Amino acid sequence: MRTDPLGKLEDLREEIDRIDEQIVDLLAQRQGKVQNVVSLKKAAGMPVYHPSREEDLISRRREQAQQAGIEPDHIEELYRCIVRQSRMRQTVHVAQSGVRPGSKVLIVGGRGQMGRYFGGKFRESGYEVRILDVEDWPRAEGLCEEIDLALVCVPIHLTVGVIQDLARHLPDSCVLADITSVKGAPLRAMLEAHPGPVVGLHPLFGPSTSSMDKQIVVATPGRDSEASQWLVDQLSAWGGIVARLDASEHDELMDLMQGLRHFATFAFGRFLAQRKVNLGRTLEFSSPIYRLELAMVGRLFAQDPALYGDIITASPERRALLGEFAAAVSEACGLLEQEETTEFCREFREIAAWFGPFCGQAMRESTFLINKLVERF
Amino acid sequence: MRTDPLGKLEDLREEIDRIDEQIVDLLAQRQGKVQNVVSLKKAAGMPVYHPSREEDLISRRREQAQQAGIEPDHIEELYRCIVRQSRMRQTVHVAQSGVRPGSKVLIVGGRGQMGRYFGGKFRESGYEVRILDVEDWPRAEGLCEEIDLALVCVPIHLTVGVIQDLARHLPDSCVLADITSVKGAPLRAMLEAHPGPVVGLHPLFGPSTSSMDKQIVVATPGRDSEASQWLVDQLSAWGGIVARLDASEHDELMDLMQGLRHFATFAFGRFLAQRKVNLGRTLEFSSPIYRLELAMVGRLFAQDPALYGDIITASPERRALLGEFAAAVSEACGLLEQEETTEFCREFREIAAWFGPFCGQAMRESTFLINKLVERF
Repeated sequence: MRTDPLGKLEDLREEIDRIDEQIVDLLAQRQGKVQNVVSLKKAAGMPVYHPSREEDLISRRREQAQQAGIEPDHIEELYRCIVRQSRMRQTVHVAQSGVRPGSKVLIVGGRGQMGRYFGGKFRESGYEVRILDVEDWPRAEGLCEEIDLALVCVPIHLTVGVIQDLARHLPDSCVLADITSVKGAPLRAMLEAHPGPVVGLHPLFGPSTSSMDKQIVVATPGRDSEASQWLVDQLSAWGGIVARLDASEHDELMDLMQGLRHFATFAFGRFLAQRKVNLGRTLEFSSPIYRLELAMVGRLFAQDPALYGDIITASPERRALLGEFAAAVSEACGLLEQEETTEFCREFREIAAWFGPFCGQAMRESTFLINKLVERF
Repeated sequence: MRTDPLGKLEDLREEIDRIDEQIVDLLAQRQGKVQNVVSLKKAAGMPVYHPSREEDLISRRREQAQQAGIEPDHIEELYRCIVRQSRMRQTVHVAQSGVRPGSKVLIVGGRGQMGRYFGGKFRESGYEVRILDVEDWPRAEGLCEEIDLALVCVPIHLTVGVIQDLARHLPDSCVLADITSVKGAPLRAMLEAHPGPVVGLHPLFGPSTSSMDKQIVVATPGRDSEASQWLVDQLSAWGGIVARLDASEHDELMDLMQGLRHFATFAFGRFLAQRKVNLGRTLEFSSPIYRLELAMVGRLFAQDPALYGDIITASPERRALLGEFAAAVSEACGLLEQEETTEFCREFREIAAWFGPFCGQAMRESTFLINKLVERF
């Protein structure tokens, strides 16, 4: 042991490095054990995700931390990370065993982004995957032969037409499903055109999502739910959470959650571009929260214009809602005409009361994320 | 060792638990060593944060992970977390030693949220802190006696008036600074009213920020920068990043980054409230990205209406900008009048091109955060 401050510091750092070496070593051992668990579960046909085991594991590490004099929240944060990494690894392994491997799945629009995503998933899980895209229509008859599922993954404005063209080639017993982000019109079209099992799906995630783990898929029941249960089970096996919702409530919610939200983001980004704002300079002097908000805007413009155009203008109801929104923004602006903020504050408090306990939760969640952002970038 | 699947699973889980016990044990040991490092640094007056040591440490763990067959990205994620937790602990310790302990600091508006925040910081670091709030003006003369710094932390619309009232009590050598989120008018008022050292500050964070670590503080130079250098050093010692910017550029940037951004969020929340949207239902069926976007809206309404009213209406320029924004939203809405999205897509692509490489970065950052959100909640 050295006695001068710099020497001592060097010694301490070496000791920390040795501790870190042991930690990473243990993490590698842990991964080995987790792989054994996966093989065992796979062989016994058990589900991967085991929430109560995870919570139990974390509680025990928190207790140990408390006794050892470390911040239990810090240990929980680390273990949430470890557990998630291990869950993702497990999901990847188990995903390969399908619920109905060998079944024939036709992906309509299979060369689009979401089509490729689902095609890959089904293929990995042992299904026979066929693709029907624009240029394949002359061969539609053969492609549809003996299929167990036709999954329509085409742009919103083409969905109804594609369903009508497709249906006459389908075997009666085949499950017909779509993944369009509006559900009313496509579901009606499927029920009219196809006499067999029908289910509408809306995966609330994009093709860049690395794992379906904990991602929501809305299922709108159509006809003969039992016959399409295996499809729902397959989505769950991939880690998705399948939530049932009827088509009209779905569309009303999505008018707000997708149509309005994406439009507001689009209009904001458009204004920044029109003003030729010095983006680099604003980022240089930005708080993490502004950086995060701007990232949400930039994120939109990293994606496919046609997809967002389709989502934003999906239905006449949605376009009417956006008109009302634009009028409301002008009205809100009227609140600010005088320097006096009494009226603004009164409205602010009313809105906060309407949001209720969500505000506090939103504060905690976004603060948690802002800390993550500060940590990482 | 048991041989039936459930027994085997139990055994494996026990082995994982034993590994986890050792990991937490090592983390506790690590914390002890880090505390030794802190004491040593404190005694030797060395800075806490050592970016190159952190990067070096993480590189070595990545290499070890690669050799041990674990995903290096996973290990990096864990170690960024460990290193950050340890950095926060170090900052807390070192913060207590001030740059100029014993100096007299007057916090004007010391009972407001930011006033209390800075009062606490200075006190922890060994300064003599005095408070001047609304009811203390009769004692202003005595409170200002021999002070080294007067820090004005009052609402925006009061700042200029308070500066004028305060200045005649200040010793000439005292540093006069404010933390208002507009800088033009307050800086001019400080320079006119006080002949001594002047600096305008704008901390880009709120009073709920647990650590100043990596938070940005804008400094707009006023007069005699050398005399206020210790204040800048103190902010840096607390972990802040002090960035110089002149008042007019600052205000122009903040019109957009604060005024416009907060107004857009306010108008969006107001519209949801007016429509009496079923918030719980939208959250139940929300994708992580929508949840995150809604959290940013809810976050605003968890905060002080008067503060946001002040920020949004801070100057006539800002109010004019918001009017232009409202007009631009209506105009954007006009793009959607027909079902045809050609024009929307053309504008979308233009805006995306204007955002340039930021889009890709925004996609990566927000995807990283969405994963964090999925993991945690």
